[in-house]
Amino acid sequence: MKSFRRVSREHHQEDTVVKLNTSQGPVFIGEGYCTIIAGPCAVETRRDYLDMACFLRSAGAHILRGGLFKPRTSPYSFRGLGKEGLDIMLEARALTGMPVVTEIMDVRDLDMLSQSVDILQVGSRNMQNYTLLDELGQVNRPVLLKRGLSATLEEWLLAAEYVLCGGNHQVILCERGIRTFETYTRNTVDIGAVPLVKKISHLPIIVDPSHATGKWDMVIPVSRAAIAAGADGVMVEVHHDPDRALSDGKQSLTPDNFKRLMEKVLPLARLDDKK
Amino acid sequence: MKSFRRVSREHHQEDTVVKLNTSQGPVFIGEGYCTIIAGPCAVETRRDYLDMACFLRSAGAHILRGGLFKPRTSPYSFRGLGKEGLDIMLEARALTGMPVVTEIMDVRDLDMLSQSVDILQVGSRNMQNYTLLDELGQVNRPVLLKRGLSATLEEWLLAAEYVLCGGNHQVILCERGIRTFETYTRNTVDIGAVPLVKKISHLPIIVDPSHATGKWDMVIPVSRAAIAAGADGVMVEVHHDPDRALSDGKQSLTPDNFKRLMEKVLPLARLDDKK
Amino acid sequence: MKSFRRVSREHHQEDTVVKLNTSQGPVFIGEGYCTIIAGPCAVETRRDYLDMACFLRSAGAHILRGGLFKPRTSPYSFRGLGKEGLDIMLEARALTGMPVVTEIMDVRDLDMLSQSVDILQVGSRNMQNYTLLDELGQVNRPVLLKRGLSATLEEWLLAAEYVLCGGNHQVILCERGIRTFETYTRNTVDIGAVPLVKKISHLPIIVDPSHATGKWDMVIPVSRAAIAAGADGVMVEVHHDPDRALSDGKQSLTPDNFKRLMEKVLPLARLDDKK
Amino acid sequence: MKSFRRVSREHHQEDTVVKLNTSQGPVFIGEGYCTIIAGPCAVETRRDYLDMACFLRSAGAHILRGGLFKPRTSPYSFRGLGKEGLDIMLEARALTGMPVVTEIMDVRDLDMLSQSVDILQVGSRNMQNYTLLDELGQVNRPVLLKRGLSATLEEWLLAAEYVLCGGNHQVILCERGIRTFETYTRNTVDIGAVPLVKKISHLPIIVDPSHATGKWDMVIPVSRAAIAAGADGVMVEVHHDPDRALSDGKQSLTPDNFKRLMEKVLPLARLDDKK
Repeated sequence: MKSFRRVSREHHQEDTVVKLNTSQGPVFIGEGYCTIIAGPCAVETRRDYLDMACFLRSAGAHILRGGLFKPRTSPYSFRGLGKEGLDIMLEARALTGMPVVTEIMDVRDLDMLSQSVDILQVGSRNMQNYTLLDELGQVNRPVLLKRGLSATLEEWLLAAEYVLCGGNHQVILCERGIRTFETYTRNTVDIGAVPLVKKISHLPIIVDPSHATGKWDMVIPVSRAAIAAGADGVMVEVHHDPDRALSDGKQSLTPDNFKRLMEKVLPLARLDDKK
Repeated sequence: MKSFRRVSREHHQEDTVVKLNTSQGPVFIGEGYCTIIAGPCAVETRRDYLDMACFLRSAGAHILRGGLFKPRTSPYSFRGLGKEGLDIMLEARALTGMPVVTEIMDVRDLDMLSQSVDILQVGSRNMQNYTLLDELGQVNRPVLLKRGLSATLEEWLLAAEYVLCGGNHQVILCERGIRTFETYTRNTVDIGAVPLVKKISHLPIIVDPSHATGKWDMVIPVSRAAIAAGADGVMVEVHHDPDRALSDGKQSLTPDNFKRLMEKVLPLARLDDKK
Repeated sequence: MKSFRRVSREHHQEDTVVKLNTSQGPVFIGEGYCTIIAGPCAVETRRDYLDMACFLRSAGAHILRGGLFKPRTSPYSFRGLGKEGLDIMLEARALTGMPVVTEIMDVRDLDMLSQSVDILQVGSRNMQNYTLLDELGQVNRPVLLKRGLSATLEEWLLAAEYVLCGGNHQVILCERGIRTFETYTRNTVDIGAVPLVKKISHLPIIVDPSHATGKWDMVIPVSRAAIAAGADGVMVEVHHDPDRALSDGKQSLTPDNFKRLMEKVLPLARLDDKK
Repeated sequence: MKSFRRVSREHHQEDTVVKLNTSQGPVFIGEGYCTIIAGPCAVETRRDYLDMACFLRSAGAHILRGGLFKPRTSPYSFRGLGKEGLDIMLEARALTGMPVVTEIMDVRDLDMLSQSVDILQVGSRNMQNYTLLDELGQVNRPVLLKRGLSATLEEWLLAAEYVLCGGNHQVILCERGIRTFETYTRNTVDIGAVPLVKKISHLPIIVDPSHATGKWDMVIPVSRAAIAAGADGVMVEVHHDPDRALSDGKQSLTPDNFKRLMEKVLPLARLDDKK
């Protein structure tokens, strides 16, 4: 893997810690922290999203997620509220003081999103959308780069290299499961990617156990595994009524299960002196 | 696979045959034809590209390929000549009368490319770039849709569905190898995808044995397998001097080997009464 | 792949052609021949097996297959007739003059089977059963070695090396599909393995499209692809009444479809001057 | 997954805990315990093995491992000391009071091994060697069943079902990594298999991070992930001088690193009240 430059630990020895400023003080992602990103798969209605944001705030989540532009395998599935959802998301941000993260799919949305949300997410399907990565290298916003469905570790880090070599050094890697022959789970979490990324690169890495497993009752044990393996946080889906979610209901935690997640995960982080 | 509509044979029973008009008469891709698409991986210099185009014309190829915007795993690799290469490609088109195909990566290039080239190619990495697929549904140009590196048959056909449901019914599917555990070849050709697509869908399907194998000496046997399995054509890489190619040299045929390919493949097509 | 010795073409340049003597004259497997192995997945009843053998003989098949000891994923599935089936198989052999092939799973059956059947098959699940491979190196019977479900080309050839280094040089390799993420077919045929094995090794290689695809209507196109890619033959499952087969019914051809297979495959073999 | 009977939690609700009697008191594997199995990949020399056994005893390991009959991809690799090694292993057992586990490959070794070692291991390559599984169903010894390289969860549990339906209910499952496209690590640990097995079955499950990753510096983080996800223990390779090991040196811990493993893993077990 000689092709890395800016993402490699040889190039930059110190761990990169991303800092997000909020009205409630800063939020960090990187070595020494255990950061919890939570929210519904997609922003669906104003009322539900604001309620969820308040709940997550009180339950200890650090960052709020929510899809506005949803990449869907079928063109006939719900594809997100788009710009209308952005207003709701920003209202939740103002209400709770939590930073927000959402996925960007189209370079033509870059101005709008980079001026309003705290982290720009690149989804698995766009991990090698180099047009998008080149543009994200030019903006002054952290990028959450999900691993492609069948991307090798090398390809993933080289996708991050695209953003860094454009001048934007604020990249957070997100392991979200890879595609294997096993069909019992939606994807297979590559837990080994966590210590490997930590060794090779200075960038933060988090795990998304919701997409990685596709099953809500695996989210807690896999989140624990992620933190125990050295991940800097997890990103999970939470929905008030998973059975009625417009997308990804099966993998969403209920609010009660999210509370249980916090109880089961935080002691592991404390064991390693993570904040 | 109930989610298909426009791509399925139930929706449209007759085979779709794509017709390209040229100064030398029409070129067809679809059932009953064996169409050979050939050219270098990327347009590199004017002189070499025009020479190659003339050679391929005389050797019996039907359509000319050549990359202008190259998706590369590393940001430091050669990324194509861009618009400068387009002029060279159009000169080769005028000179030989052959239709041309090139990859589109950025929706912002769509006007330029859809007005000048005969087929717009979507690469593996962008198979689920829905922003791009939505836009391609709006243009009046055939789309060559490569299968994603780890896309299931269902995901691939649903990507085609995006284009068809936008109103553009001229989609050609291209099997280009999938990612498996086997590392001896670059990818693994899923030869079974050919009869499966023919059964499920009315769309034409071709095979790209160059990218699928990554080895020039496998291109002829795999091309033969493709045609024997029922594919409507193949797309192969040819380079005057593969050792000096700026990309994909190892999988490129020399002009002499391209002639051998034609000798070894065409008799199989004739056996099935393909033109 | 420096670890090969006896299986490699460098060690033994001339193609190995396996010769089976029968009351009707010799049957060959190897370069220059297109050998068709056919029969039901398992020997089920005496009457049906003898009828099938006579049909296959008249339809032009060269070798008769039939499982006696069936490796089944579940212990509760039909596991074969065992020694009782062997008598039926040998009766079919005497009746038709066709050589027979069956799978061996237990080293303790080796004496019995090596003295009665013409080819000993090693199934996918036992490709790395080194106890069995070591013993097969000691017998004077050809071995049909199926590729393991997720065996690399190198591992497969090294499994053959076990047999050859024991002193038995009569090994026939059989590509039967590998396990990938694609679930539409039972396995994914690695068609590229055919030219690769032909290049690296002197051993014959055939393809089993029935197990590779799991779908009877893909058997003909994939058989054609195999022969076009250079395979020395195919092994297919045929059953008088696939819907009532005790195993693998979905992938079995009816007798009529077997006749169609012969009509569609033999012209390809003739094109390459194969007998 | 309706095909399970005896392995399923519906059939047997209470967790199976395997008990091994030793001169130092009982050792348990199952829910509520965190059991550490350690030792070199293969028994190489008497002196080294006895030294290692004493070290591991003092460092807190519970069970001693060591290969006698080694399944090797190439027939020319070191294949184990065989029966000679067994005497050494039993001497270490007598010296330390630790129970021992070794792999069985050949049914003809069953009498010898089942009368002398505490746990009989079935390796990945033999997970579907049904001849062996049937015989293991007849003995009164716990079986450590490794997951096959590309076995689905269902196939793995059905392999255990073979042993249970023979009458032997003492099966310990061992996740040891699955084969995927990623080549940076030897295999990919399927960490999700841990909570899934715990949910579906009553059998104990442990993880082998040494074979799963192939890299010694990943053994500690992956062991931590395993315990955090709910595994009942880990099995790791330790060697006095990994660079000179006759097999698997790259994935072996030094004694010092084994001590660090214990320091990093045991606090996680204590957090969940595991003994």
